[in-house]
Amino acid sequence: MHQHRHPRTVYLGARHLIDLVRRKGLSACIAGMAARIEADYRRWHDFDKTARVASHSERGVIELMPIADATQFAFKYVNGHPSNHRHGLPTVMAFGVLADVDTGAPRLLSELTLTTAIRTAAMSALAARVLARPGSTRMALIGNGAQSEFQALAFRDLVGIRELRLFDTDAAASAKLAANLVGQGLRVILCAGTAEAVRGADIVTTVTADKAHATILTPEMIEPGMHVNAVGGDCPGKTELHRGVLEAADVFVEFEPQTRIEGDIQQMPADFAVTEFWQVLAGQAPGRRSAAQVTVFDSVGFALEDYSALSFLRDAAAELGIGDSVDLVPEAANPKDLFGVLREEPVPTAPQPAPRRRAAAAAG
Amino acid sequence: MHQHRHPRTVYLGARHLIDLVRRKGLSACIAGMAARIEADYRRWHDFDKTARVASHSERGVIELMPIADATQFAFKYVNGHPSNHRHGLPTVMAFGVLADVDTGAPRLLSELTLTTAIRTAAMSALAARVLARPGSTRMALIGNGAQSEFQALAFRDLVGIRELRLFDTDAAASAKLAANLVGQGLRVILCAGTAEAVRGADIVTTVTADKAHATILTPEMIEPGMHVNAVGGDCPGKTELHRGVLEAADVFVEFEPQTRIEGDIQQMPADFAVTEFWQVLAGQAPGRRSAAQVTVFDSVGFALEDYSALSFLRDAAAELGIGDSVDLVPEAANPKDLFGVLREEPVPTAPQPAPRRRAAAAAG
Repeated sequence: MHQHRHPRTVYLGARHLIDLVRRKGLSACIAGMAARIEADYRRWHDFDKTARVASHSERGVIELMPIADATQFAFKYVNGHPSNHRHGLPTVMAFGVLADVDTGAPRLLSELTLTTAIRTAAMSALAARVLARPGSTRMALIGNGAQSEFQALAFRDLVGIRELRLFDTDAAASAKLAANLVGQGLRVILCAGTAEAVRGADIVTTVTADKAHATILTPEMIEPGMHVNAVGGDCPGKTELHRGVLEAADVFVEFEPQTRIEGDIQQMPADFAVTEFWQVLAGQAPGRRSAAQVTVFDSVGFALEDYSALSFLRDAAAELGIGDSVDLVPEAANPKDLFGVLREEPVPTAPQPAPRRRAAAAAG
Repeated sequence: MHQHRHPRTVYLGARHLIDLVRRKGLSACIAGMAARIEADYRRWHDFDKTARVASHSERGVIELMPIADATQFAFKYVNGHPSNHRHGLPTVMAFGVLADVDTGAPRLLSELTLTTAIRTAAMSALAARVLARPGSTRMALIGNGAQSEFQALAFRDLVGIRELRLFDTDAAASAKLAANLVGQGLRVILCAGTAEAVRGADIVTTVTADKAHATILTPEMIEPGMHVNAVGGDCPGKTELHRGVLEAADVFVEFEPQTRIEGDIQQMPADFAVTEFWQVLAGQAPGRRSAAQVTVFDSVGFALEDYSALSFLRDAAAELGIGDSVDLVPEAANPKDLFGVLREEPVPTAPQPAPRRRAAAAAG
């Protein structure tokens, strides 16, 4: 029903996504998106990449994140408003589109709020699988908001984390996370502060949302061999790591031009050395070189990951028969007669045969 | 029904738009959008403006056009694929979103294919009302495709055009346009070529779609006092006017940084003088200075016009009770508990009271 010749668009709303994730299973979605993201990072040079376009205001940021390869164009709309929870709204809301490069027709319009949490966790765990010490089992999770469960489960599934040490300035958020993780095969420890949570961890994940220069991690908290997964911090003026943490580590990023503006490395000189993650996957740059080395994944979220996530959703939705078909584009019997759709006739609802004969003569 | 506290999004699909335009009347929509566009251009400095982000391929271009003022963020997705009509698809397809700057919540998602044709015509006629000779009644219309009827009617309504001289390399397109204009109070003359169509016209509108440097208008066709409304040509490598036409005219643009890249002035040196249209409206720059002067509106389409159009649609849809409410953003009882929406409970369909008490305690 989604294969009309006319460009009807598959719509996946929040309820469709919930249905999709429940039926497929969250672990399968995390693993599926991680596999897509890895495959797409391995073909880095196929993509037309650009730093996202951001519109900043006092309370937050709204961003458009486009990317394309030879066949598909994808973009995500995403906001970041740290005080939204005070109004009963998510901090991060997102949706996105997949379109055909050859015609520009939008093929999929999907919610990406839930999806962003899943794909971000998949990306984090994928990076840690490559960069953290083998055998890492203990993770500190600083920031226990909307994305934290997804991070916890992705690291359990893809990295082998078995113990989680939680801290959030909002104790209710930590309690919520701990409750949500009951029965998930993770030992969960509620900690009284960041230093306590971080102590003895193999991996430290920071996923906080304040729109300000915060110093969640300071150099004295960092132990040899730790991997830091810095997920929060995604706009100018917002960081989570003390610069000393970055100075003492090897720093990996998604797309350098974007991370220089938005990431924790915005505190550092423009020539501060970083490695793009795809280079490690491609064997063009070393990842972890020793058990004592500190690695930082300065993650801000890159459009490629949304391209991967949207592609995963398109296929999973088709497989499960989930989604509605919406009329984002008008259906004109003759594409040069857009005016014709306004005539006082019944609006066509069935696909129309393409006007082959007239169109073949057309030019100009 | 669209005033939920939760960020449900109003959806206006193609059928909603057709319904809206039929019920309000096309002339009222053109006039309404023109009034919004004019009002928004008059408050130019309220907007955070950026040149659109374009992804070019062999067959066309896909663009994202964001803009924001202090309260609303708007963007449009739009493609331009000149050979689409061969596949039964419109050359230009578009949709867009209005969102709250304070929260990032998307409030309106609308088709913009039909809307782009209306708002582009409204913009063209608005510019001509300011720049063309008073009393202009005769217009040449070169390019008789999907946008041409809208141009014709906007110039009839807002400028006073009474005679249209048509030419298109596709004679069937001209015949379609002429047929669509029967009974619309316009004298329509089918011409055998551009030069014939242009001869004696007060205003020349070019709205062709080839993705190549075309020379639709050459200097010898231009007569003293003409106003040229150059609508086609909206990406690098695509122009409609011979450079001699530009050299002999005063050229007006929407947003100079974008038009330098995409407009007909891409052929000219970087210091070729142009005037931004808002400056004329604001009385900061002269428009037409004499009856013999040739004026060119080198229009490429600017995000501000889509902001205006989306605002018009939002209000018109609310007034007429048109539109669906869609779940682009998941509804979590606790915004910090996104994971909770995956629990095996019925998916909430009614608006939930915001979790005031818990949210007030939250931070981090």
